[in-house]
Amino acid sequence: MTGSRAAELNASKPGKAGDVVDDHEEAGQIKMGELSELLGYSLKRAQLRIFDDFIRCVASLNLTPAQFSVLLLIDRNPGRNQTEIANTLGILRPNFVAMLDSLESRELCVRVRSANDRRSHILMLTDNGRTILARAKKLVATKHEARLNEVLGPANRAALLGMLATLARDF
Amino acid sequence: MTGSRAAELNASKPGKAGDVVDDHEEAGQIKMGELSELLGYSLKRAQLRIFDDFIRCVASLNLTPAQFSVLLLIDRNPGRNQTEIANTLGILRPNFVAMLDSLESRELCVRVRSANDRRSHILMLTDNGRTILARAKKLVATKHEARLNEVLGPANRAALLGMLATLARDF
Repeated sequence: MTGSRAAELNASKPGKAGDVVDDHEEAGQIKMGELSELLGYSLKRAQLRIFDDFIRCVASLNLTPAQFSVLLLIDRNPGRNQTEIANTLGILRPNFVAMLDSLESRELCVRVRSANDRRSHILMLTDNGRTILARAKKLVATKHEARLNEVLGPANRAALLGMLATLARDF
Repeated sequence: MTGSRAAELNASKPGKAGDVVDDHEEAGQIKMGELSELLGYSLKRAQLRIFDDFIRCVASLNLTPAQFSVLLLIDRNPGRNQTEIANTLGILRPNFVAMLDSLESRELCVRVRSANDRRSHILMLTDNGRTILARAKKLVATKHEARLNEVLGPANRAALLGMLATLARDF
């Protein structure tokens, strides 16, 4: 019932009052409306695009952006415990444990019971983990980030990073 | 084995050669290293923050950012079919079908079999859907987007949208 009624209603107003006429309307293109002005939507679309490219660039090492950030952080902060690393990256505990299981099974990192607190595990990279991370860093810099620099230009890239930092800090 | 060996190795180099000394090191803060320079990571963190705020702002209507964007797009493009809307938003078919099931069960939109192509469903909002969308738009504009404007400033907000559009288009 609701269906057909809504159908009639909509059919009866192909161009609603106040509709902005879209240049592409004839071409049958979908009108984005307010969506193109929504920061959250634009951020999500850009982020998905960038993650796809990241995964392509490090495909030979089979690392996701999240796995890469975990390896980076462990390498930078050897001996920190699981909770500290997970909280810093905003990864939920169950997801983080699953990720560590996979990284450990690939011998990229290890969990060692802390001497001070037997309940907590400290994390560190294996030699293999350090090697893979170094290769990944190189691929990210020379393929992924280099192309981002090309598309945005160094100045815009810096400005973008600054605004994203502002959002993460003050919003 | 690898574990303890890696442990020794790491323990033997608390400050690796070439390590940038971090001001917060004494405070025991985690060093972000290259992570703070990675555009993808910064985008993801900012996007999560913004989505959390969006969900808080429209909590009274119980809409996710994705549901909001679907309602917006259907309202702007009444009578378009399921595939067109899903593709425009980059939502995978199974996820989109699940979302439509939920929106339809809440009587926010309807799927009507297309007269031209019996296999495809065209989408439209119900009266209730239009009412909820109008309320959501108001909440998003007055609470969510208004605060983003405050934090970034209108000029930066526009610049940010522009750069994200460039990334979505050219990257």
